Amino acid sequence: MVKQLGSGSLCFSEAPFIVSTASVVGTKEGEGPLGKLFDVVGEDDNFGQQTWEEAESSLQKDAVTLALGKAHRRPEDVRYLFAGDLLGQTIASSFGLKNFEIPMFGLYGACSTCGESLGLASMTVAAGCADMTLAVTSSHFASAEKQFRFPLEYANQRPLSATWTVTGGAAFLLSTREKAASIGKPLARIAGMTTGKIVDYGIKDSMNMGAAMAPAACDLIVRHLQDFERQPEDYDRIVTGDLGTVGQEILIKLVKEKGYDISHVHEDCGIKIYNGETQGTGAGGSGCGCAAVTLSAHYLKQISEGNFKRILFVPTGALMSPTSFNEGQSVPGIAHGVVIESVEER
Amino acid sequence: MVKQLGSGSLCFSEAPFIVSTASVVGTKEGEGPLGKLFDVVGEDDNFGQQTWEEAESSLQKDAVTLALGKAHRRPEDVRYLFAGDLLGQTIASSFGLKNFEIPMFGLYGACSTCGESLGLASMTVAAGCADMTLAVTSSHFASAEKQFRFPLEYANQRPLSATWTVTGGAAFLLSTREKAASIGKPLARIAGMTTGKIVDYGIKDSMNMGAAMAPAACDLIVRHLQDFERQPEDYDRIVTGDLGTVGQEILIKLVKEKGYDISHVHEDCGIKIYNGETQGTGAGGSGCGCAAVTLSAHYLKQISEGNFKRILFVPTGALMSPTSFNEGQSVPGIAHGVVIESVEER
Repeated sequence: MVKQLGSGSLCFSEAPFIVSTASVVGTKEGEGPLGKLFDVVGEDDNFGQQTWEEAESSLQKDAVTLALGKAHRRPEDVRYLFAGDLLGQTIASSFGLKNFEIPMFGLYGACSTCGESLGLASMTVAAGCADMTLAVTSSHFASAEKQFRFPLEYANQRPLSATWTVTGGAAFLLSTREKAASIGKPLARIAGMTTGKIVDYGIKDSMNMGAAMAPAACDLIVRHLQDFERQPEDYDRIVTGDLGTVGQEILIKLVKEKGYDISHVHEDCGIKIYNGETQGTGAGGSGCGCAAVTLSAHYLKQISEGNFKRILFVPTGALMSPTSFNEGQSVPGIAHGVVIESVEER
Repeated sequence: MVKQLGSGSLCFSEAPFIVSTASVVGTKEGEGPLGKLFDVVGEDDNFGQQTWEEAESSLQKDAVTLALGKAHRRPEDVRYLFAGDLLGQTIASSFGLKNFEIPMFGLYGACSTCGESLGLASMTVAAGCADMTLAVTSSHFASAEKQFRFPLEYANQRPLSATWTVTGGAAFLLSTREKAASIGKPLARIAGMTTGKIVDYGIKDSMNMGAAMAPAACDLIVRHLQDFERQPEDYDRIVTGDLGTVGQEILIKLVKEKGYDISHVHEDCGIKIYNGETQGTGAGGSGCGCAAVTLSAHYLKQISEGNFKRILFVPTGALMSPTSFNEGQSVPGIAHGVVIESVEER
């Protein structure tokens, strides 16, 4: 059912379906170019909670509840939950998801977590280890700023290369063909995956995450194309998570050096989600939630409506912490890729 | 190849083998009852590094290098790496493992991470998604104290229920039967797994982790016995990760209320690893490394020598962070179980 390809890729002969998805975002994301596509846009960024961390937890909880509801499924129908977030000890996921009582694998892949969770959730279904799984992730601007950067009150200036952490959470419900049949037409299928390696170019500027993550995205995309023996033209889009404008330029150049031109098919969720001209978001959006809500609300819609036949979805993560930064360490990157296809016959 | 059982368990018809393992520990662990069994005992707890975090990273790096070396395998022979640790953004793993360039799934399950990584690594092999995988985890007393509790300099007093974070890292190399044949006699096989749910009894005392984690261990063990239709007597040992003396008592009582008596087969790695009478370690050892190095050095030895035919290994984790604690949140628990059997025919 699963074919091992090259260096860390898997091709699913019976591809799991994405049967349902839901996205919940904050006010700034609601005002952006994709604003009308999200399932829920919060009235403010507290989401009725006392702390930023609880607010982030509620993004995950609401996204899971909605995704299950859209598919008319209950938590006990889900065999495994794959989830993670950016916070230390991934507390947004632990506290957001505990009440569902679904057997859970906690993940940490920084902003690549959406790709990591979709990869493992789809592998588990494709390999016959589960009939139905959930992949969930989130980020919150304020909890991330509190965790990683200066306190919000300081009003520090940001360099142009800095990105803006997306307030958003998304959930993806995956299932076998058999289980999907009872739910209705699936949105898409996950036909394969390529798992990321940590790539460290020694970049130490935590305000330039795009540059730190681009080499990992390049490694993933090139390995993926080689493993699947494909060209960039075989994809309607190759979509990174949150490289932003600075990272996009580096990525396209790095991939070109490896013999592939992705300039005409590359898009970045961080660039898609905000209007960089008017929203003051620097190089673009970032955070686990950035790729997750953009996939949920925009790309899956395009695929389910038949506008895209196949995309390579590559969320990118920067594997640093406040401690590693303070201790002068570099910012290694990682990226995880999944192949998402239309359910229409090719 | 994989049979789904009950509520989150998997039984592997072709069980992956543990072909190699290695453990690296600090001075205090070296002075404990298992001291002579570990592969490496550091001369001091810095392991030649500048910071506690780098010291912890070196535990993972050295354990992986040793485990690969014992099996005469190179990093490129390993298809996937499953790893995690206790630190915010799991930096011990990211910085410790980046140079191996193995496709990696980053995990966070607090001190249950050893069970989570072994579960996913064995599932991946059993389901035909990889021929060889590595599961790695670690903890370090000083990096954990710095992360979670008071700075070391304060010399605060610890309540008796407090545990002592183990300085140690362990790696486990798993493979298919075919790949194992070229390496030599495997140490053991992983015959199945049960995935944990988050269980929250509302305990808020971060100095009593055993009490916070015992309900999750109870849930896991009871679900496991039900899913596999077994009794405690079917196991030579049921081994939790780091409940300590306080948690052990609670666990045995909770499991008895569910109709199973595990008092005669239960052991806890946190109790095994230190001499509680003389080493001043409170209720016992804790941390991701506690269960990992005790399995690696002690239990796998007992199994490979034929003294135990089958154990249920259940590392336990407390899903809290300094932020969640400061914000008055409870300490939810999780536990992940794997069935480890002798390779001799039963």
